[in-house]
Amino acid sequence: MNIHSDIATIDPKKLEKLAEVAVKVGLRLEAGQDLVMTAPLAAIPLVRLITRHAYMAGAGLVTTFYSDEDTTLSRYRHAPDASFDKASGWLYEGMAKAFAGNAARLAIAGDNPMMLAGQDPSKVARANKANSMAYKPALEKISNFDINWNIISYPNPAWAKQVFPELGEQEAIRKLADAIFAASRVDLDDPVAAWTEHNANLRKRSTWLNGERFSALKFTGPGTDVTIGLADDHEWHGGESTAKNGITCNPNIPTEEVFTTPHALKVDGYVSSTKPLSHQGTLIDGIQVKFEGGRIVEAKATKGEEVLNKVLDTDEGARRLGEVALVPHSSPISASGILFYNTLFDENASCHIALGQCYSKCFLDGASLTQDQITAKGGNSSLIHIDWMIGSDKVDIDGVRADGSVTPVMRKGEWA
Amino acid sequence: MNIHSDIATIDPKKLEKLAEVAVKVGLRLEAGQDLVMTAPLAAIPLVRLITRHAYMAGAGLVTTFYSDEDTTLSRYRHAPDASFDKASGWLYEGMAKAFAGNAARLAIAGDNPMMLAGQDPSKVARANKANSMAYKPALEKISNFDINWNIISYPNPAWAKQVFPELGEQEAIRKLADAIFAASRVDLDDPVAAWTEHNANLRKRSTWLNGERFSALKFTGPGTDVTIGLADDHEWHGGESTAKNGITCNPNIPTEEVFTTPHALKVDGYVSSTKPLSHQGTLIDGIQVKFEGGRIVEAKATKGEEVLNKVLDTDEGARRLGEVALVPHSSPISASGILFYNTLFDENASCHIALGQCYSKCFLDGASLTQDQITAKGGNSSLIHIDWMIGSDKVDIDGVRADGSVTPVMRKGEWA
Repeated sequence: MNIHSDIATIDPKKLEKLAEVAVKVGLRLEAGQDLVMTAPLAAIPLVRLITRHAYMAGAGLVTTFYSDEDTTLSRYRHAPDASFDKASGWLYEGMAKAFAGNAARLAIAGDNPMMLAGQDPSKVARANKANSMAYKPALEKISNFDINWNIISYPNPAWAKQVFPELGEQEAIRKLADAIFAASRVDLDDPVAAWTEHNANLRKRSTWLNGERFSALKFTGPGTDVTIGLADDHEWHGGESTAKNGITCNPNIPTEEVFTTPHALKVDGYVSSTKPLSHQGTLIDGIQVKFEGGRIVEAKATKGEEVLNKVLDTDEGARRLGEVALVPHSSPISASGILFYNTLFDENASCHIALGQCYSKCFLDGASLTQDQITAKGGNSSLIHIDWMIGSDKVDIDGVRADGSVTPVMRKGEWA
Repeated sequence: MNIHSDIATIDPKKLEKLAEVAVKVGLRLEAGQDLVMTAPLAAIPLVRLITRHAYMAGAGLVTTFYSDEDTTLSRYRHAPDASFDKASGWLYEGMAKAFAGNAARLAIAGDNPMMLAGQDPSKVARANKANSMAYKPALEKISNFDINWNIISYPNPAWAKQVFPELGEQEAIRKLADAIFAASRVDLDDPVAAWTEHNANLRKRSTWLNGERFSALKFTGPGTDVTIGLADDHEWHGGESTAKNGITCNPNIPTEEVFTTPHALKVDGYVSSTKPLSHQGTLIDGIQVKFEGGRIVEAKATKGEEVLNKVLDTDEGARRLGEVALVPHSSPISASGILFYNTLFDENASCHIALGQCYSKCFLDGASLTQDQITAKGGNSSLIHIDWMIGSDKVDIDGVRADGSVTPVMRKGEWA
């Protein structure tokens, strides 16, 4: 049976290396661990390879849930209005239970970034909110880093056509596949060794930032003049990181960022986005927001403004920041010159901030903090966590200490 | 994107009618009901059509879980030994919760009947047992008929090649598709009306049997001489039936049987199977068993004997009967002359019995009975429910009343 016309286009050896990197670098799956995977149907070939490598690494049981653009669109076209306030809570509660039992989590990204572009924004927002609320018990185990998890991506044909609209489908898939393979370092002879070296480089950056103990970062560039206060006892992370179950994993493949927790109440000024954001199948571009006391008090966008404003209305925390991340403009993903319309890639081509939920691991001794302690230190809490890009070769960043002294962190998008 | 090479082979209008029959006859999905669907990956085209028709019928949310022969076989080839005692209990508990919230259940059958033929029978048995135990909370809601549910099938290429080994793949798929469409009555102009008529015919048979109140059925034929006691207050059913949620549905598409509950302690004699049985990817053929006091005390098979004996060892109830069903030898499915290697079809071509769990609905006022009351009336209980075929044009069946009087029920496989 020929499930995919596109699989002939994608280099099978590199796809197999990607599966190996997902299991051995991304997840570091341990013998006996179960694995819960989610993927679009287009990614069946990668799911099969990852499943094989997971079992070869000693996985107990691999369970995969597929999403399907066709059935998602059927819902928008035909379902009754009440459908859009529903979500499969029973499934997400089950996933949370699996994670509580130490199952690892792998998500294959690669959905069509424009899937929901033609749909009613209010239905999209309601469906996303219902889903976020239902997913919360499972997402908390990820954002609290209870278990090892990983996101990796597959060159879905619909995504490839969005990235390379000028190319034929097969050529677009091939080019996106090559970009994914390069960014994920599986075009190298020994990807596992390459990731070891890359993790060491990212650790150097986060170690320097942790030593500096800045109390705020000041971003200056076209349309951007903002001071982002950092949470008390914030800690910078990047690359591999150790989950509470003791397993050191690489949650994102690719990753080029170092990141920490901003102070939910201490962000002031203006920010303009530097790349479009694909959020749940809708494109949001030309974002301009104004922060006062950590809160977004004004938000505009040249595209997708209605969706953006509905996202900001998800809950109180949706208007505040949960992450700030630094990525040099010369990062390999940025250097590729490709706009991926996919956060996993675009966030690693540019400095970025995230609306919503913070990561508890981005605090000193974060694993032992209660929710109240995290809040007291300035950690934000929300149903959402949405990264958007604010870095470019025109943006400067200064580190500001509690005593007011200033150290250049980045100049024209590069480490100073 | 071309997901399937086989979809070009299958008549799209009839496939759409099959989806409509699944929703309007099989499930009778009500507005606002959620739907939980399971399917092999090969059945993606049918899943998409059913999802669309479900939303058009007012479904709240449709959630589909796919099974994949490739990843199942990866597990058997590569997973550590301990994997085979594992199952996704968290998922099945979630499903049970969805059913408790009145979600309907649809299963698309059509897996490769020989999928696990080359695998270690003891691993197959352990995996099946772990799965049955984990699935129990969800299966109980089906076997107690709490909600409307339906099984329908899709002409999976691997299944088609097993049924028509002499044909090329495309021709085999086309022929199996046509057989499924005919048996499911979607080759007719108005399938929904045809099902209304068929349901009325099956009701006539079950009404007659319920009027007779036989205490036992005596089967006589080549290799078969058995008296199957019927449970106290048993009730015959066939065709459409009303679930405890008040929805009248057709749980099996196709269906030609009328069936009831045997007495778990009152089956004596010898039975020989008349068709091979495909159980969880293994073929079991030439079954010969001896019953004493309702219990199988000897079991042989010319093929798959080891798997059969492991199935019988699942639990105490696995050696006793949970169902007896009458199907005339002239049923359309039997008349097709096709051996489907799939219980949904083969059980509707022949009288059959089922090892394991009984259906509580097959008792007078079954919905209000407790488990203890069901057991006291002779209802069997087990993790398994496996139908196997014992009817042919050489088998006679007599109905025996409590006073010893006898009425012919079937002669040479036809209603007497």
